[in-house]
Amino acid sequence: MKHIKLAYIGGGSKAWARVFMNDLALAEGLSGEIALYDIDLAAAERNRRIGERINAAEEAVSKWDYVVYESLESALIGADFVAISILPGTFDEMESDVHAPEKYGIYQSVGDTVGPGGVLRAMRTVPIYEEFARAIRKCCPEAWVINLTNPMTACCKTLFDVFPAIKAFGCCHEVFHAEEFLACVAAEELGVPKPDRRAITVDASGINHFTWITEANFEGHDLLKLLPKSIEKWYNEGHYEYGDPLDFRSDPFRYGNKVKMDLFRRYGVLAAAGDRHLAEFMKKSRYLRDKNAPEEWLFHLTSVDYRRADRSRKIEESELIASGAKPVKPEKSSEELIELMKAILGFGKIVSNANTVNRGQVEGLPIGSVVEVNHVFDKDSVKPIVTNPLPGPVLQMVAENAMNIENTYYGIKERDLEKIFAAFMAQPLCCELSWSEGEELFRTMIRNTKQYLSPYYDLRGIL
Amino acid sequence: MKHIKLAYIGGGSKAWARVFMNDLALAEGLSGEIALYDIDLAAAERNRRIGERINAAEEAVSKWDYVVYESLESALIGADFVAISILPGTFDEMESDVHAPEKYGIYQSVGDTVGPGGVLRAMRTVPIYEEFARAIRKCCPEAWVINLTNPMTACCKTLFDVFPAIKAFGCCHEVFHAEEFLACVAAEELGVPKPDRRAITVDASGINHFTWITEANFEGHDLLKLLPKSIEKWYNEGHYEYGDPLDFRSDPFRYGNKVKMDLFRRYGVLAAAGDRHLAEFMKKSRYLRDKNAPEEWLFHLTSVDYRRADRSRKIEESELIASGAKPVKPEKSSEELIELMKAILGFGKIVSNANTVNRGQVEGLPIGSVVEVNHVFDKDSVKPIVTNPLPGPVLQMVAENAMNIENTYYGIKERDLEKIFAAFMAQPLCCELSWSEGEELFRTMIRNTKQYLSPYYDLRGIL
Amino acid sequence: MKHIKLAYIGGGSKAWARVFMNDLALAEGLSGEIALYDIDLAAAERNRRIGERINAAEEAVSKWDYVVYESLESALIGADFVAISILPGTFDEMESDVHAPEKYGIYQSVGDTVGPGGVLRAMRTVPIYEEFARAIRKCCPEAWVINLTNPMTACCKTLFDVFPAIKAFGCCHEVFHAEEFLACVAAEELGVPKPDRRAITVDASGINHFTWITEANFEGHDLLKLLPKSIEKWYNEGHYEYGDPLDFRSDPFRYGNKVKMDLFRRYGVLAAAGDRHLAEFMKKSRYLRDKNAPEEWLFHLTSVDYRRADRSRKIEESELIASGAKPVKPEKSSEELIELMKAILGFGKIVSNANTVNRGQVEGLPIGSVVEVNHVFDKDSVKPIVTNPLPGPVLQMVAENAMNIENTYYGIKERDLEKIFAAFMAQPLCCELSWSEGEELFRTMIRNTKQYLSPYYDLRGIL
Amino acid sequence: MKHIKLAYIGGGSKAWARVFMNDLALAEGLSGEIALYDIDLAAAERNRRIGERINAAEEAVSKWDYVVYESLESALIGADFVAISILPGTFDEMESDVHAPEKYGIYQSVGDTVGPGGVLRAMRTVPIYEEFARAIRKCCPEAWVINLTNPMTACCKTLFDVFPAIKAFGCCHEVFHAEEFLACVAAEELGVPKPDRRAITVDASGINHFTWITEANFEGHDLLKLLPKSIEKWYNEGHYEYGDPLDFRSDPFRYGNKVKMDLFRRYGVLAAAGDRHLAEFMKKSRYLRDKNAPEEWLFHLTSVDYRRADRSRKIEESELIASGAKPVKPEKSSEELIELMKAILGFGKIVSNANTVNRGQVEGLPIGSVVEVNHVFDKDSVKPIVTNPLPGPVLQMVAENAMNIENTYYGIKERDLEKIFAAFMAQPLCCELSWSEGEELFRTMIRNTKQYLSPYYDLRGIL
Repeated sequence: MKHIKLAYIGGGSKAWARVFMNDLALAEGLSGEIALYDIDLAAAERNRRIGERINAAEEAVSKWDYVVYESLESALIGADFVAISILPGTFDEMESDVHAPEKYGIYQSVGDTVGPGGVLRAMRTVPIYEEFARAIRKCCPEAWVINLTNPMTACCKTLFDVFPAIKAFGCCHEVFHAEEFLACVAAEELGVPKPDRRAITVDASGINHFTWITEANFEGHDLLKLLPKSIEKWYNEGHYEYGDPLDFRSDPFRYGNKVKMDLFRRYGVLAAAGDRHLAEFMKKSRYLRDKNAPEEWLFHLTSVDYRRADRSRKIEESELIASGAKPVKPEKSSEELIELMKAILGFGKIVSNANTVNRGQVEGLPIGSVVEVNHVFDKDSVKPIVTNPLPGPVLQMVAENAMNIENTYYGIKERDLEKIFAAFMAQPLCCELSWSEGEELFRTMIRNTKQYLSPYYDLRGIL
Repeated sequence: MKHIKLAYIGGGSKAWARVFMNDLALAEGLSGEIALYDIDLAAAERNRRIGERINAAEEAVSKWDYVVYESLESALIGADFVAISILPGTFDEMESDVHAPEKYGIYQSVGDTVGPGGVLRAMRTVPIYEEFARAIRKCCPEAWVINLTNPMTACCKTLFDVFPAIKAFGCCHEVFHAEEFLACVAAEELGVPKPDRRAITVDASGINHFTWITEANFEGHDLLKLLPKSIEKWYNEGHYEYGDPLDFRSDPFRYGNKVKMDLFRRYGVLAAAGDRHLAEFMKKSRYLRDKNAPEEWLFHLTSVDYRRADRSRKIEESELIASGAKPVKPEKSSEELIELMKAILGFGKIVSNANTVNRGQVEGLPIGSVVEVNHVFDKDSVKPIVTNPLPGPVLQMVAENAMNIENTYYGIKERDLEKIFAAFMAQPLCCELSWSEGEELFRTMIRNTKQYLSPYYDLRGIL
Repeated sequence: MKHIKLAYIGGGSKAWARVFMNDLALAEGLSGEIALYDIDLAAAERNRRIGERINAAEEAVSKWDYVVYESLESALIGADFVAISILPGTFDEMESDVHAPEKYGIYQSVGDTVGPGGVLRAMRTVPIYEEFARAIRKCCPEAWVINLTNPMTACCKTLFDVFPAIKAFGCCHEVFHAEEFLACVAAEELGVPKPDRRAITVDASGINHFTWITEANFEGHDLLKLLPKSIEKWYNEGHYEYGDPLDFRSDPFRYGNKVKMDLFRRYGVLAAAGDRHLAEFMKKSRYLRDKNAPEEWLFHLTSVDYRRADRSRKIEESELIASGAKPVKPEKSSEELIELMKAILGFGKIVSNANTVNRGQVEGLPIGSVVEVNHVFDKDSVKPIVTNPLPGPVLQMVAENAMNIENTYYGIKERDLEKIFAAFMAQPLCCELSWSEGEELFRTMIRNTKQYLSPYYDLRGIL
Repeated sequence: MKHIKLAYIGGGSKAWARVFMNDLALAEGLSGEIALYDIDLAAAERNRRIGERINAAEEAVSKWDYVVYESLESALIGADFVAISILPGTFDEMESDVHAPEKYGIYQSVGDTVGPGGVLRAMRTVPIYEEFARAIRKCCPEAWVINLTNPMTACCKTLFDVFPAIKAFGCCHEVFHAEEFLACVAAEELGVPKPDRRAITVDASGINHFTWITEANFEGHDLLKLLPKSIEKWYNEGHYEYGDPLDFRSDPFRYGNKVKMDLFRRYGVLAAAGDRHLAEFMKKSRYLRDKNAPEEWLFHLTSVDYRRADRSRKIEESELIASGAKPVKPEKSSEELIELMKAILGFGKIVSNANTVNRGQVEGLPIGSVVEVNHVFDKDSVKPIVTNPLPGPVLQMVAENAMNIENTYYGIKERDLEKIFAAFMAQPLCCELSWSEGEELFRTMIRNTKQYLSPYYDLRGIL
């Protein structure tokens, strides 16, 4: 039985916290303290109560001490792990990120990674992460730090740049969805029951939400060779690894994988993220030409109103659980975080994708930029595996976005709005903006979110 | 007196040939044979007659033997230098390159370097250059090969890729224009007579037609620090280093440098090519949004009809010269080719820009891609100088185009239309095309120029 | 049950063949054909008979078809795996490799990897491997090729250089011994029973026989932090992971690990190969100053006479087994080859060290040279893991040897004796030779082994 | 006329100061202040008086204000150039550097660059250069800094590492001697008068005192192709570019170039430093086996006693000049420093060798290490030229030494005696030391020079 302290930073208002606490309850061999810290103290407190409900559940194998801390540093001191999952700003800021660009014909399906929304979100998030990095260096320099916040690449870059010796990685489940999709291909083409995604071995390379699978094996079958057959069947109507390909009409987090299939036809490798994400890394004419284009490509835009309603539902549910009105019944989720932590604690090797600094694992991307590839997770060790080269045109698109994120990051680091604007205009989704439209939009988005920017930037020329 | 053989491949229909022959006539210390080879034999013959007229001119210091060859190999054998300046296809193909995309809202100011026209032109040119490279390897492997043809980067790449030991470089005068522009800045801000551009020292780095000056010195003055003042004065009305900034209205090869000034304001470094070229490397919304956008940025599109008329005039003039009806009077041009050749022959060192394979001279661009930087030209030696790092957002744009050209080249090398199409769609000027529009345009442009493509590509799926 | 064909090239006279056949017999889930090819046909035939004896053993879980082939190509056709384990030349050549340099004060403890013996052995081996690579490209380009022959680095380099798309890796158990040594440390310092070496996680980086462990974990204990304590106890008397540290006096394949402990004290990282190997990568004054130095460092030189006697015993034993006079009783060896093959066949991931081309996994060693690091072995996939940086002085020594091997290889590839001689003199073990002594020794060693060199090299200046 | 301030740090006791002041007096177009600073104030004062004598000479074209400063910072404030030429410690310390190792059979011909003497000298020098770099950053961050002190590579590394934005380069005339040698080859083989070395164009690449010429041109003649003929004639008796090859017997700064010729025969490229320097970068058995080996290779060891006597003579002469007893008659020296400064001031481009940080100019050496190649010197600009690749075995030797110097530097930076000792033992000249001999020698050399080390290092374990 390993006894650990995990500092959980943020996560107050996220359903993800519940999922994670359920997984913790089922984590055999682990116990200890979950140190909850959130700028919304009440949310942290609610999570604590949920944690205790889960502890009390019959299925709970591991019991955890859920403790709420009122300062970041006190939560971090003595931590073995730090998981960070914050919402930078509120949904009001996200509303601006996602919807303000629509006036200029820019429709973002997610708006938290790249594109104009991704840049503004990075502007809010990076300064907070600078503080996190400094606090970790001071309070728990040996802790393993797991980033769960978007924009993933910029958040991880901040941690590594401010505190180079940090033991950190970024964790995202998007690649898993692509593996599930490949599991469907295996089932379809081999006539077997849909296998567990872990039975499929992939080489994935790129940056978060724009990672590409260049190799996929299932029991000796080269799935990328089988894929064209499935695509022929599925292309028009779509295919969804967890349900009906048309589910996206009611749930905009879903999609029909038509973008992914189209990209495979064009480039011969499989993009390993949800279609909503993929579309945002590409020029807008491709999959986000206008408000209606997504429907044609079998996905929908995720409006912030939808997110608001979704979160209200989830908070409501959380309240019911916290108060005991709704019973909890821990079930293992499809998340892998506990497994990664256990591997780091010495329970056995795992290979899984993660985001770390490029030291040579992705040929052709800048050394020092944050990339996403398979890593070996082992006792106190997370090491990247060298990946297959990406096809030229794919490498070009990934490099373009990787360089844009680097430029965004350094502009933010230097609090230099002109540099940030240059990176803003370089976004593939901004490719149809004239300079003056771009300036107008950038200023508007800054004004909309000024409450979260003015502590860090000199906005006098803009407000 | 050095006696050399220079094989002049192509150039039959170019006024540039005359300029070059005039410079040759004034090249003290050099003499020998100019071996003319052109698939248009009559044009080569006309050049021979012009050469002889020039020889006969009073001002001619050096007399040259102008000899027309009917085969490439015979022209190459024994050559000390090979200058290549061809038109791949005719103006009919160029008409398609430049104007076919207009139906899709893509207005190209030049259409021979990047953008849809640049890709199609590369498709015609690279296979011819493969033959050139093989013939040079066979007939004159020790010769210095000077490329003058566009698309410069792809042509040079072909020479280096097919015959890695080739002694070659690509030569372009666009950087000179930026130096002239800086000479105007020096005059304006320092109150001196406009200095010779050679008195200005620059560090220029990038790829042909998209090179950037990061450092410029004139007699100890940092011209990039003086530039903002000149830009303040010139921005609205433009400034042209050789005349009236509005000349572009009658002569579309001219421009008012507003693009260059705008880019300097945004990125802090000076783009070192004519504005017509620069605009094509950027997303179309920036300077080529629609047919009328160039006027606003103080340049015009160069129609192929204009080129046709221009060439007719020049050929007519050539005929008059060849026949003796028009007298010749050699004057030194602003071209530098003779000086470079003389440096290579040991007449003294020169530093000038050239295009060669990146071996480390430009940090952040792919090793092995063709880049344009200053080189030291010296006795049998052309060596690149390591350049200053480019600012992040500029490097991103240069890298994007450099990778696109690499991808175009490898697609052509493998005669793989899908790969070429991927690179076609990745052009910044194509950023507003949907996949289907792009396919339609690509097919149309291939059909339009099929006569020059079908010897090399399997076009069955397209015609 | 996977049915495979494995071509086993060479190995005729090696006891290792028996070990491997035993392991095959115990490889659950695998069966198929073992295609035996050896230039010594009788030896291959003997192996076939031993294989059949093993098949007949009660313990044999898997039965294999042992087939002797008289040509390399016929053995290779249809192979899924190719294992290569040859003796280049005979023990007479090895006698020269190992003992000829002694006249010049160079005492080699092994003589097959680096040092004068390593260079001469590479001269005999590389041309044979060039043929292997071409035959594999022709007969079984998709097969996984496992090199077991020394000099490991040069053999692997040849395979990758001649046939770049080859699916190959080199396999060596020396790192395992260092892991066993660390297992002893764990037992000593933690007071636990000696753990299985697989329970210890290491990061090892370098080149074959000169790999360095920069990180070692056992159940959360940092073994490199515990190591100094063990070294304090063991340094003087030595420590041997498999027995008495003084065993080396009767069995020169054994050693007391004093070199390894000494190096750890000096550099803070643990060299991961037997001390006999390590000493040869370093300047001779360090551990091989003279004939008696090894005794002081608790190892002995391995004379070729010892090898001859050892092999005679083993062949004798093989004959007894082949004839049935000696019963076989398959037991699982400590070798890992079967496990690696099973991982490649999809039986589950393994992390183990292997030799492949450096694509970024070892920072500071030449890209394209062959390096040894941990790899993930998985279904049809062997991928290097990016390693920790080596300490500066260790990197210098590894780079020195890696560059020497590259230079040796390219000299051999070009059949250029001067280049090979330059690499010969650059060997750390040759550091005390004057040029003329070196020339004399090099010529002598070439003359001694001319029978195996004259087919490949122009020796007229030497014989 | 350019008016400048040059801070001349050190140089008090060097004849070089006189040479430099003579050159200054002849530097047309330049004038200003020479700010003299030396920890030996009297020496600076003597230089001031000499400077004034030179000013008064008839031949003096430029008059300079020679001003003695008593603090480093006051000398630096306002400087346009800083030239640094110090003796770290006294000849007593140098006596230890050069002669202490002789007890262990290590005979150093110079002892100030690499080898045991080079390491100890770096230990004394680097901490002083750290102070210089900080003072320059504070007092004259825009000044051009010219290093003239040995060990050149470590001194330059310190400047660049402590103050990365420094405008600095290291200046050494050794390459010029090799060019003079090549001028002799040109004369010998072409039957022309010995040309000026500036008429010979070379590509030289490597590290200071171990630079290699891969290409040499004189009026179109490939001198490296002519060289074997000259070597055939000169090898046995030697050849000296400035006099009799046997001069070295009376003047140990001279040499017969036999080492250089021998290396050319072995590697095909020409080492571009005096033979005394070259020998020290190689294993001692090659050219420094014992006390008598140099005689055989036509050079002599430079004893510190010789240096003492030499300096006494020069100081005596300086005193005579300073007092007016000996008349001065400025003549242009063969040094190039003034020319480089004039190029930086805008008097015209020069190509010459210099030491700067490797940013890609030497393929295969660590990025960030200090290397020596040709640079273009131009108005406020010193830029490295990308060099030809070095042959494999030469690159190995250069890389070995470059890595050793890097390791020495980082050991000193961290004041870590163990790391420094590791780099000490890795010196090619130390290759025959056992660990214990090495430790003994290292401790002895530290004790001998402790006066200059104890301010910086914790020597308690050693004294």
